[in-house]
Amino acid sequence: MPAPLSLGIDYGTNSCRAVVVSLEDGAELASRVFAYPSGENGILLDPADPDLARQRPQDWTDGFAEAVSGALEDLEAAGHDPAGVVAVGIDTTGSTPLPVDANGAPLSHQERFSENLAAQAWLWKDHTGHAEAAEITTLARERGEPYLAACGGTYSSEWFWSKILRCKRVAPDVFEAAHSWVECCDYLTAWACGDTTPETLKRSVCAAGHKAMFSERWGGLPSEDFLAALDPALARLRDRLYAEAFPPNEKAGILRDDLARACGLPSGIPVAIGAFDAHMGAVGAGVKPGVLVKIMGTSTCDITVGDLAADGSVPEIEGLCGVVHGSVIGGMAGLEAGQSAVGDLFAWAVAQLTPGRYGTGGEAHAALNAEAEKLSPGQSGLVALDWNNGNRTVLVDPRLSGLLLGQTLHTTAAEVYRACVEATAFGAKVIVDRFESGGVSVDEVVVCGGIAEKSPMAMQVYADVLDRPIKTAASSQTCGLGAALSAAVAAGAFVSVEEAQARMAHVKERVFQPEPRSVAAYAELFAIYKKLHDAFGGVDRAADLSAVMPELRRIAEASRKGGALAGAEESADRG
Amino acid sequence: MPAPLSLGIDYGTNSCRAVVVSLEDGAELASRVFAYPSGENGILLDPADPDLARQRPQDWTDGFAEAVSGALEDLEAAGHDPAGVVAVGIDTTGSTPLPVDANGAPLSHQERFSENLAAQAWLWKDHTGHAEAAEITTLARERGEPYLAACGGTYSSEWFWSKILRCKRVAPDVFEAAHSWVECCDYLTAWACGDTTPETLKRSVCAAGHKAMFSERWGGLPSEDFLAALDPALARLRDRLYAEAFPPNEKAGILRDDLARACGLPSGIPVAIGAFDAHMGAVGAGVKPGVLVKIMGTSTCDITVGDLAADGSVPEIEGLCGVVHGSVIGGMAGLEAGQSAVGDLFAWAVAQLTPGRYGTGGEAHAALNAEAEKLSPGQSGLVALDWNNGNRTVLVDPRLSGLLLGQTLHTTAAEVYRACVEATAFGAKVIVDRFESGGVSVDEVVVCGGIAEKSPMAMQVYADVLDRPIKTAASSQTCGLGAALSAAVAAGAFVSVEEAQARMAHVKERVFQPEPRSVAAYAELFAIYKKLHDAFGGVDRAADLSAVMPELRRIAEASRKGGALAGAEESADRG
Repeated sequence: MPAPLSLGIDYGTNSCRAVVVSLEDGAELASRVFAYPSGENGILLDPADPDLARQRPQDWTDGFAEAVSGALEDLEAAGHDPAGVVAVGIDTTGSTPLPVDANGAPLSHQERFSENLAAQAWLWKDHTGHAEAAEITTLARERGEPYLAACGGTYSSEWFWSKILRCKRVAPDVFEAAHSWVECCDYLTAWACGDTTPETLKRSVCAAGHKAMFSERWGGLPSEDFLAALDPALARLRDRLYAEAFPPNEKAGILRDDLARACGLPSGIPVAIGAFDAHMGAVGAGVKPGVLVKIMGTSTCDITVGDLAADGSVPEIEGLCGVVHGSVIGGMAGLEAGQSAVGDLFAWAVAQLTPGRYGTGGEAHAALNAEAEKLSPGQSGLVALDWNNGNRTVLVDPRLSGLLLGQTLHTTAAEVYRACVEATAFGAKVIVDRFESGGVSVDEVVVCGGIAEKSPMAMQVYADVLDRPIKTAASSQTCGLGAALSAAVAAGAFVSVEEAQARMAHVKERVFQPEPRSVAAYAELFAIYKKLHDAFGGVDRAADLSAVMPELRRIAEASRKGGALAGAEESADRG
Repeated sequence: MPAPLSLGIDYGTNSCRAVVVSLEDGAELASRVFAYPSGENGILLDPADPDLARQRPQDWTDGFAEAVSGALEDLEAAGHDPAGVVAVGIDTTGSTPLPVDANGAPLSHQERFSENLAAQAWLWKDHTGHAEAAEITTLARERGEPYLAACGGTYSSEWFWSKILRCKRVAPDVFEAAHSWVECCDYLTAWACGDTTPETLKRSVCAAGHKAMFSERWGGLPSEDFLAALDPALARLRDRLYAEAFPPNEKAGILRDDLARACGLPSGIPVAIGAFDAHMGAVGAGVKPGVLVKIMGTSTCDITVGDLAADGSVPEIEGLCGVVHGSVIGGMAGLEAGQSAVGDLFAWAVAQLTPGRYGTGGEAHAALNAEAEKLSPGQSGLVALDWNNGNRTVLVDPRLSGLLLGQTLHTTAAEVYRACVEATAFGAKVIVDRFESGGVSVDEVVVCGGIAEKSPMAMQVYADVLDRPIKTAASSQTCGLGAALSAAVAAGAFVSVEEAQARMAHVKERVFQPEPRSVAAYAELFAIYKKLHDAFGGVDRAADLSAVMPELRRIAEASRKGGALAGAEESADRG
């Protein structure tokens, strides 16, 4: 018997990556990346419209064959047997829907549409539907529909219906030609199983629930009546979409024989239901009740899971970008939140607000980290809001912007940089507090992404601000690992995701523990952050901010004295 | 008859400068600088206390002889006759009081006190008396005393009584040995006239009114009763101070013969009453009712004059650092306000928030100016508060700090720099509005200082924000010129300061006129600045700031579109 393995394929914005992992310990045994050949780094752009971002579906299917065959070659070369692969899991970006014909084939495969941007996949970061998103939000609110409760109270231009409605408006020929619309993760899963028929292909509840306002509670997708009020054509489309959706640790079908042969995979293995990358990343990082996973990059995606209520319902928590039954792990509420700028905010501070004496680029970033690490919490007297790219959770307002407060004539670039890091940690705390006030506990945090290596300072700040231990995922490919792990569960290799995680999902040894003194200092600063958050975020429309600046001065002075005292105590200890 | 001349001696923080000007056209015919030899650039410091800043009175009198003789040598060498000098005027920093003996000689001249920092002059920027200043403010408020009304409602650590009370507390031996305390400008004037007897030397109403709570309205200095409540020793000192004070365009006495001979000055010429540098700078820049003079440097001092009420009283305007009868020009209300960080704020932005690609120091400053000049008002979406060094007028709160708001991931260093410049202009507008709401009109603004040459962009921003023409003083030595001009009036060479100014005080040809479109754009931004000003300054304790950030986005978008439109219009005009 060959050692049991699972294959995860992670479809990102610019490339896809196939990862083969061991079911025994989650070790990554082989992987191969395929860069999408179309457009700019795989993205089709329109010079006249910066909001437009599309993707060519052919790139994905080409990538499947290339990346999987390559990974399996490497696997064999490393002495492992591809015959051990028991399941295939696919995770993708989203919401990335594409228009398809009655057979589920992408319209872009038709010659007449092959160069039509509207007939391609509408990539997650395509914002052309912002007017349509506002229309959907307004209509749902006016009608008192329940649909927005599960997606934070505001529908986004990045999501399914905004994009389809936009297509109807600007490219009616494509809209009319489309028999149905399918999310990238669902299309690829169905394609891998050999049957893309829109009415029968098994859709992901992750995509359906977080992006398409799907819920079993109200009988699936939004009502015909609601859709008709948006546009009668949307109501007519509803029947050609779906009425059911499934969690990622269930089986979508069996891998097509021709594809298995072409790639060197065993025949007859199951393919799991598709899911979004961040959700699978959370699974690969060990998400479970009480554990929040932060996928930290330019922005942040925060995922956790919670138990269902006795009646099987999920909690409604305002401001999250979704609470969906089974979207991360079947049988649990999957909760998603996010911060619109984290790594991007640090990079901005380095690029725009950092004098030449710190060097440039990575060198400046390292120098700032080193200098910022020496500062005590509160010492700079600064506090910032992390809204340079708007606020995703919990205010859901892209028009919000950044704020820096407390600067004097002595404020340094390193202090500004640290204030930016702290601001993102405060933003993270607002999310954690919102989870907890919604009855979803967060006892520890696991971080994925390179930030833990690049800035242990930032990790310590997060531990102190959140007053929770911060761990980092052992795998650098948690998305692919999570997809492989979920697929293994779907294939029956484990009885539950929890069991599979115990075996396959690990964290690194170094844990960032909160330091009581810093925790106390940050509690004071967070109170100020929250005051500003509420005042500028529209939560408190009669804000008394008169004490904010004097209070920051007081904290800064106390921090400096505390530092001096600590120094004195240390000397005394030594003496 | 030699051509009529006047001599002004301007005592700054690090040096003094003698300037000889023509009474015919105000031309500067000769000048000489003397750098104070003591301490660090003339300032005695205490490494253990960053608030301490003292000056050695001997440096001043040494400087008089050196600078004046030198200037007169140069004058003669240039073909002018020193016998034409008809008057001497002295202006100094302040409040810079020094303890003196019964003859008015500085205590620091005594061997036992020569190295005692408390026995030196307490330089304007000495802040050691901050606790005492708070004590004075609190007591005056509690007792409902009228004293604070004329100095903006809050007594400062930089001022006369704070320093004397501080001396009593920390150096009782010096305090006991002091027969009286004299401001730098009064000491030097009396010294130049040959009689420094504290009880009879003629004190400046500029120093007395703006810094020592002196007013004819309540019979001179604060009451014995009030001073006794602060400290009985202060009450006992009151009789050894003064009961009268005089405007700068009156005569203090006649120049000492020995000093005249030593310096090469004519014998028997009058010395005018002393005054502060900024007030004389305003006179040299042509201050008159309706004209506000801004002395712009690291910080800003704003001076204007207003007519007295029919009963001879001056207006009470909250938040100014003084409204004093005769402090600038005899017979008029002299009004002083200020911004704590202007040039300092720009320099901070250049030093701390400017990437290496802009160069460093002056080069970076020039590059930022060039890039910032291309921006339209509102285009960046940024607004800042200019409080990095606290707020002097109208909030009078040193604990306030800076704020930058509206930044996105695209915000550039040049945009941040321009936002800092705009913030200081908004701060200037708050002051102008306060003057006007107090019944003191401001029709145009004259700026002194190098900023007009360094940054025409900043001048244009000020013209647009203030919606008033901005002129710049022709002289680069307006303080010395103003002292010489006032002294010429005191000597009877002119019937009034106004007549003298018409002859001697000029502005440069280039006038920065407000541009209607920018005026409108800045009116919108100022409304936001004012909202933030009031919210963080404690004026509005139930602030609704929820619209601030979206509003800035809207303004930025409109500005970008407006810019594009304007460009299109221009092309059309050309076509």
